[in-house]
Amino acid sequence: MRQTDILIIGGNVAGSAAAITARRHYPHKETLLVRTEKKAVIPCGIPYIFGTLGSVDKDLRPDALLEKEGVKFAFEHVEAIDLARQRVQTSGGQIGYERLILATGSLPAPIPIPGVEKEGVYAVSKDTAHLQSLLHRLRDARHVVVIGCGYIGVEFADEIQKLEGKKVTVLEVAPHCLTMGYDAEFCVEMESVLQERGLHLRTGVKVAEILGEERVRAVRLADGAEIPADVVIVAVGAAPNVELARAAGLKLGPTGAIAVDRTMETSQKNVFACGDGVEKISFFGGRSSTIRLATVAAMEARIAGANLYGVRRENIGTVGVSATSAGSLVLAAAGLTETAAKQHGYDVVSGTVEGANRHPGVMPGSVPTKLKLVFDRRSGVLLGGQIRGDQAVGEMINLVSACIQQRMTADQMAIFQASTQPTLTASPGTYPLVNAAELAVAKMAQTR
Amino acid sequence: MRQTDILIIGGNVAGSAAAITARRHYPHKETLLVRTEKKAVIPCGIPYIFGTLGSVDKDLRPDALLEKEGVKFAFEHVEAIDLARQRVQTSGGQIGYERLILATGSLPAPIPIPGVEKEGVYAVSKDTAHLQSLLHRLRDARHVVVIGCGYIGVEFADEIQKLEGKKVTVLEVAPHCLTMGYDAEFCVEMESVLQERGLHLRTGVKVAEILGEERVRAVRLADGAEIPADVVIVAVGAAPNVELARAAGLKLGPTGAIAVDRTMETSQKNVFACGDGVEKISFFGGRSSTIRLATVAAMEARIAGANLYGVRRENIGTVGVSATSAGSLVLAAAGLTETAAKQHGYDVVSGTVEGANRHPGVMPGSVPTKLKLVFDRRSGVLLGGQIRGDQAVGEMINLVSACIQQRMTADQMAIFQASTQPTLTASPGTYPLVNAAELAVAKMAQTR
Repeated sequence: MRQTDILIIGGNVAGSAAAITARRHYPHKETLLVRTEKKAVIPCGIPYIFGTLGSVDKDLRPDALLEKEGVKFAFEHVEAIDLARQRVQTSGGQIGYERLILATGSLPAPIPIPGVEKEGVYAVSKDTAHLQSLLHRLRDARHVVVIGCGYIGVEFADEIQKLEGKKVTVLEVAPHCLTMGYDAEFCVEMESVLQERGLHLRTGVKVAEILGEERVRAVRLADGAEIPADVVIVAVGAAPNVELARAAGLKLGPTGAIAVDRTMETSQKNVFACGDGVEKISFFGGRSSTIRLATVAAMEARIAGANLYGVRRENIGTVGVSATSAGSLVLAAAGLTETAAKQHGYDVVSGTVEGANRHPGVMPGSVPTKLKLVFDRRSGVLLGGQIRGDQAVGEMINLVSACIQQRMTADQMAIFQASTQPTLTASPGTYPLVNAAELAVAKMAQTR
Repeated sequence: MRQTDILIIGGNVAGSAAAITARRHYPHKETLLVRTEKKAVIPCGIPYIFGTLGSVDKDLRPDALLEKEGVKFAFEHVEAIDLARQRVQTSGGQIGYERLILATGSLPAPIPIPGVEKEGVYAVSKDTAHLQSLLHRLRDARHVVVIGCGYIGVEFADEIQKLEGKKVTVLEVAPHCLTMGYDAEFCVEMESVLQERGLHLRTGVKVAEILGEERVRAVRLADGAEIPADVVIVAVGAAPNVELARAAGLKLGPTGAIAVDRTMETSQKNVFACGDGVEKISFFGGRSSTIRLATVAAMEARIAGANLYGVRRENIGTVGVSATSAGSLVLAAAGLTETAAKQHGYDVVSGTVEGANRHPGVMPGSVPTKLKLVFDRRSGVLLGGQIRGDQAVGEMINLVSACIQQRMTADQMAIFQASTQPTLTASPGTYPLVNAAELAVAKMAQTR
């Protein structure tokens, strides 16, 4: 039987980050990562395989950093975990461990629609053969239907419409696209851009059935309408992959994911878990969260990896920070929307500003940027932010995230020290974060 | 005699931000802004007048936001302040006030070089007639010499070299350009780019004299070398403009600027001051700081404006957050460099990472981004950061600034929740802020 110090099951976002963290914190311990696939796909890059990248190969994880840090690999399938004896059974034999990290990730969430099993219907899976098959089938497809208009749905649809001769329709049950992360005034901006780019977007519609013999022919909506489809892509989220953990006897949590404490330890001592497979707690109020993001997986992995032989980090809960783009439009969001904040029971005050992201505004590259900040009126603390602008918004939202994670108040943010430079940002007097915070402060004062 | 509630002297960055803040916090008070010039120039945009913008007119402050907020204007020259009687004497008469904010800004720092008074030698002043004259003179100039290679020097030189037929030389007494904000490994990147772009850069040289009859002909260095010059631009920093304050009897501080407490109140009750004219305190250790930035001025203005009738904000000290660009190179910095941190007495640990700012790295727009973070080994607290990359770096540095202002530790930053998206940022596993922090954590552990 092989014996190792730190064994990691799963080698995508969480597993890789856990392995690197373990090596950096415990360089004298052997770290062995077990993964079925020799090369794993980069999850966030999946939609781009079908347009911008053009091949699955271009979206594979480089393992160079893991190798540089001295992580060992075993490309085997894990069949069972024996918690009592501290060993796992793999397709290659048995491996004993001192510490175990489960990073088994997620699988596409099942949807209860008749006909989803038909040929030509694809869930968004991280399996390379599955992705290869979809890529192949899309070549000859004319009518493509995407079910679900969250980030993955938007990105898939927009990438596929870049190919020649496709008619792409996106279906969403909610009244708008991207409602998980945005208030309606931001959602409609994405909807306009998608429509301008030639996509057919139908929100507020329910899929009743997927039609066809063996192979998909059309999608039938609850109102009876039929939308022709050669390929259907189901992008309705992910469900934790917990089979190994459940079979081993690890406790599961309220949403059916692997239960962990704030140190990322499971119900079994010395066994940790991180990533899409584990229970999430919201940063806001501490209740269960169903937000599954690669960056949350990586964050949890850095907690698990650091705590293996003694606690030094705790999970503050999922903030939810994310972004997407379509054409020149970039949307980004962090924390709670105004709608979600109200649902959480907060008394909300928001501040919204819109202005050029260069100064003077006539500088080249100037684009109007809109920022909305959502505060709790009682404490003045920042709860969320949403931004529309150019590519720099992908980093600006991380500033908003920092302010949320540090529970900064509107008054603190109103005197935030930002870099402002003519070729790069708004002016010192109109820097959006500061200005939106100041507007919220003024609103709070008026209602006192 | 006119009587107002809130009187603000100066209407550039600090004065405007103070006026807007005053209006938002005290909407029932009249706010009157006195400024000599009808239209004020945007200070950070000045270098761009000479290349990208092509005219002074395009770099004038829009006062639309002030007008919208109900700020009143008086375009008059302020001659004296009578603190005892709470009134000022202007070119238009007397104005009584209840609260006063001084935002008199800065003037170009004088340099003790023989010949600086010659025709063709220009300090970087905010005076529009002066800028107009420089713009005019540059048209026929062939040899342009810029003295000082800080931000303003770099930006002036790079803008002027965009014009046809100019030979631009930049002289810097320090061993590198931009040493105020960057460690040498970043400075040399800017130096390479400036040289590639055709600029003649000479560092570690001292200017001895400016030669010529009435009009400048050449610049003589301490080593005897002569550099031909039709125009000389002196970009060696700014000095506080304190004449009005001094004459009124307000106390000045250790560097000769207007003394203020952390609420931005001067030695006289109900009289506040903000911007380039006031004493600065460093965020690091609280000693005097000579960093003068437009964003610091705006921050101080938002403190002064909010505190006029009761304290609600305090100045945490100058962090120093800034950025610049030349061609496709963007450099940005926040807080202390490694060199400066050591000079401050910190035991320094740094973490540096370099990698693609897209994922996978083959995504369009991918550019290698380098981030260096500097931590205090004893507390683990972040002291500074420097970044080289593309335009999004202009916002990424504000994230670093937030981490500094919140005194976040390397461990906290290693589990920071960032948005990562293929078309916008690095991957969740390699997000620079998190990765550089984790490297620093590992270094701290090794040396314990």
